[in-house]
Amino acid sequence: MTDTNPYTLLCERLGEIATLGSVGALVAWDQETYMPSKGAPGRAKQAAALASLIHQKSTHRGLGELIGECEALGLDESSPEAANVARARRDFDKRTKLPESLVNEIAETQSRAQHAWKSARKNSDFKAFQPWLEKMVALSRKKAECFGVPEGGELYDALIDEYEPDVRAAEIEAVFTPLRDRLTTLVARLLDKGTPPNEAPLRIEAAEAAQHALGMEVIQALGFDTEAGRLDITTHPFCEGLAPGDTRLTTRYDTKFFAGALFGTMHECGHGLYEQGLPKIDSDGEPSATFGTPLAEAVSLGIHESQSRMWENFLGRSREFWTWAKPVADRHFGQPMQAFSVDEVYRAVNRVERSFIRVEADEATYNLHVMLRFELERALISGDLAVADLPGVWNETFERFLGSKVDADRNGCLQDVHWSFGLFGYFPTYTLGNLYAAQFWEAIREKYPDLDERLAAGDFTPVLAWNREYIHRHGRRFGAAELCERATGRPLSPDPLIKHLERKFIPIYDA
Amino acid sequence: MTDTNPYTLLCERLGEIATLGSVGALVAWDQETYMPSKGAPGRAKQAAALASLIHQKSTHRGLGELIGECEALGLDESSPEAANVARARRDFDKRTKLPESLVNEIAETQSRAQHAWKSARKNSDFKAFQPWLEKMVALSRKKAECFGVPEGGELYDALIDEYEPDVRAAEIEAVFTPLRDRLTTLVARLLDKGTPPNEAPLRIEAAEAAQHALGMEVIQALGFDTEAGRLDITTHPFCEGLAPGDTRLTTRYDTKFFAGALFGTMHECGHGLYEQGLPKIDSDGEPSATFGTPLAEAVSLGIHESQSRMWENFLGRSREFWTWAKPVADRHFGQPMQAFSVDEVYRAVNRVERSFIRVEADEATYNLHVMLRFELERALISGDLAVADLPGVWNETFERFLGSKVDADRNGCLQDVHWSFGLFGYFPTYTLGNLYAAQFWEAIREKYPDLDERLAAGDFTPVLAWNREYIHRHGRRFGAAELCERATGRPLSPDPLIKHLERKFIPIYDA
Repeated sequence: MTDTNPYTLLCERLGEIATLGSVGALVAWDQETYMPSKGAPGRAKQAAALASLIHQKSTHRGLGELIGECEALGLDESSPEAANVARARRDFDKRTKLPESLVNEIAETQSRAQHAWKSARKNSDFKAFQPWLEKMVALSRKKAECFGVPEGGELYDALIDEYEPDVRAAEIEAVFTPLRDRLTTLVARLLDKGTPPNEAPLRIEAAEAAQHALGMEVIQALGFDTEAGRLDITTHPFCEGLAPGDTRLTTRYDTKFFAGALFGTMHECGHGLYEQGLPKIDSDGEPSATFGTPLAEAVSLGIHESQSRMWENFLGRSREFWTWAKPVADRHFGQPMQAFSVDEVYRAVNRVERSFIRVEADEATYNLHVMLRFELERALISGDLAVADLPGVWNETFERFLGSKVDADRNGCLQDVHWSFGLFGYFPTYTLGNLYAAQFWEAIREKYPDLDERLAAGDFTPVLAWNREYIHRHGRRFGAAELCERATGRPLSPDPLIKHLERKFIPIYDA
Repeated sequence: MTDTNPYTLLCERLGEIATLGSVGALVAWDQETYMPSKGAPGRAKQAAALASLIHQKSTHRGLGELIGECEALGLDESSPEAANVARARRDFDKRTKLPESLVNEIAETQSRAQHAWKSARKNSDFKAFQPWLEKMVALSRKKAECFGVPEGGELYDALIDEYEPDVRAAEIEAVFTPLRDRLTTLVARLLDKGTPPNEAPLRIEAAEAAQHALGMEVIQALGFDTEAGRLDITTHPFCEGLAPGDTRLTTRYDTKFFAGALFGTMHECGHGLYEQGLPKIDSDGEPSATFGTPLAEAVSLGIHESQSRMWENFLGRSREFWTWAKPVADRHFGQPMQAFSVDEVYRAVNRVERSFIRVEADEATYNLHVMLRFELERALISGDLAVADLPGVWNETFERFLGSKVDADRNGCLQDVHWSFGLFGYFPTYTLGNLYAAQFWEAIREKYPDLDERLAAGDFTPVLAWNREYIHRHGRRFGAAELCERATGRPLSPDPLIKHLERKFIPIYDA
């Protein structure tokens, strides 16, 4: 007997599409890890074939009808099932709003614009990239128009919505503005009046194998299930929730700077713990009935980033973590590491710098890099900023936020790949992630009064348990705003992050 | 403008199916190499989803119609295009002859029979496997009936045809019988009258990293393009022609027996060189228009095995190869290897033993293991041998062929996975491979009179060039029998293999 309940059928259908999606994820993972270089042209055909199959199935009229049948079931509006159907409807409508011609034009432009961006960045030649960026802005505006501007909102909101559903630029601005003001003040205070910590502990020689062994020991201590995941090496580290029971992290090793790999690994591990906590498998290890449906998916990029940032920064750059981790690192790195104290390492991993490059920025300055991009891309999409004016405005804003002059566009508006790929609305999710992480961390601290002692003893279960309970298991049942309120009792606020940074950095810098 | 030539359309369609097939190959490769254990249930769903898609597309009525349109084009019968269409027709008809219910029943039984076989082998308990083997024999007979018995042939022929197209059991028997007679005589002569070489050179301690470095150096010297392939570690070594420009070999290392990995790697490399030589990519590196069509596929399992055996045995166990390879191995393994001479290593890699296990058998006894299986499975399918009688008949035949008594069914009729998987007709292709390899090797030797000097100097290009010219580039244009006659000027004969073995082993054993 076949179950003809439309809700069951919908879950099955979404599960089938997700299974093909998981194959696509493997194809992409292998391309970054083990594929030989001459496999690239064939790999492009594999990826295109899968993408086309998935697009066909996920925009199929029958799927829309099935969602409609589920909507007619009269499900209790507060039930997970109703949320699942509502999210499925949202995704389906969004996917079917873009005409195929636009999708194809964007895909072709992405590939050519990225190519142009690479050589423009190399030569620090903005003019060479400008026509491609203009085209990408125009295409993104078209895309936003197809999605539709939310009532009372702006065009850019429709783009943010792809990464951070239902969040508007004006709401982000309301949280970002006080954060920016206090952060610029904090950074100036630290760097103009304070004493920077010695970064010598991070500059010891550490063999790749020793770094890998340390990374594996750390992620297992954090709770990452290595029977349901792996850690490999790639040029650009990432986490891929590849399939049920299969979450893959990557990192890269620099024998002269172990901190890059270690914090990168903890960051990706944070993403990976979220993926492992989503209800994608049943207790018997089989893919669950919710796998592939919104109930087994991440809420948003911002919530995903809250997980990576929490483990990387709130835990990984804390004195408590290093109280446990220092002897572990001593064991792997030997005498050069043993020469330093816990306090010296703790201070070294919290060095603040006025760097040009976002991906190299520290915890204190990072959000200023992001907020700069948020302001400028918002203005690009609204039309208030012409692409031709971008380098000048970038450099002026950078100096205002970070207090130093950009020396070349390569280190300025040409540094990130995102815009060449048409990813407008993506940047703010990085800082939203930090904001959520700070607020969640406060809630964890409230729930576990002995948190510091437990972390210092290497017991990280409170952090994982809290996230499993309040974040992971819900999938996309709730939106980010509701999830945050349910988890912390408060709407998102800039205060926890500001307080966290001030309390940590002012003593370290004695500023 | 779309090309509406049905031949072009057919190639495109087969290419699309092959692209999905190449994704399936990646899914299978990853499962054996890097997939974490808890990914298994999700992986099974991925594999099933791809298999189902590929089955749908490759048995689609429209594909049959397209082949029909190509057949009506009046292509020159001797052209590659006509051969391509004829092979495509053959494959399509074969695939569409099996009812879905039978395909499903076989798939389910495979999974359960393999499970039963594993525990039966472990416990050396044939009775526990017997009902599953009976079911598999019955299903294989049903499958053979669906394929149809060739005129004047037997049921078993229809099964062989899946692995070695158009070859009949009676033809195989005609080549196997003289081979078997002379081999049993040779083995008895060597082991009863000769002096076995000292295998000490193979028992040196060799670190995994050193073995891997040696293996990589050897396969690159043989001509394997490591930018279009890889070498990884798996429990069961294999070669996967994964996609155009992407051929993957695997091996496994035993620090106390480097020869296992080295010859295993050379064996898989032989398969890999064939895969790299098939016309799957154009000169610009893009997948070719013939990729996915018979013209870019291997002829048969026997021809594929001829490639692996040639590089492993005819080259790899020759004195000439070790003249070059010994100093290379010295470099990787150091003093323990340097303690032996080229002649000592050459003799050690040619030690003959009366072992029970086929996969551990040496070059001289290996074919006796295979011919035993050929006889018995032929009798199982014809009904002349009842499954219940298998262990007794196995042990009796083994003693007759190899001169020793099987001590337990674990080391006898339960040792191979093949029958639990329903692979009847597969075993003879191993010895056909050795026979083809011997005959091809003779032709190479005729074409290159200075072959020995070149091989001893590490110049293996004559071997690769000959195979590229006479075997690889033709894909499945010719059947195995025709290919052999075109390449060597003679039909397949047992003589080259017998001569090769006698000429090599009698001096080594001084018998």
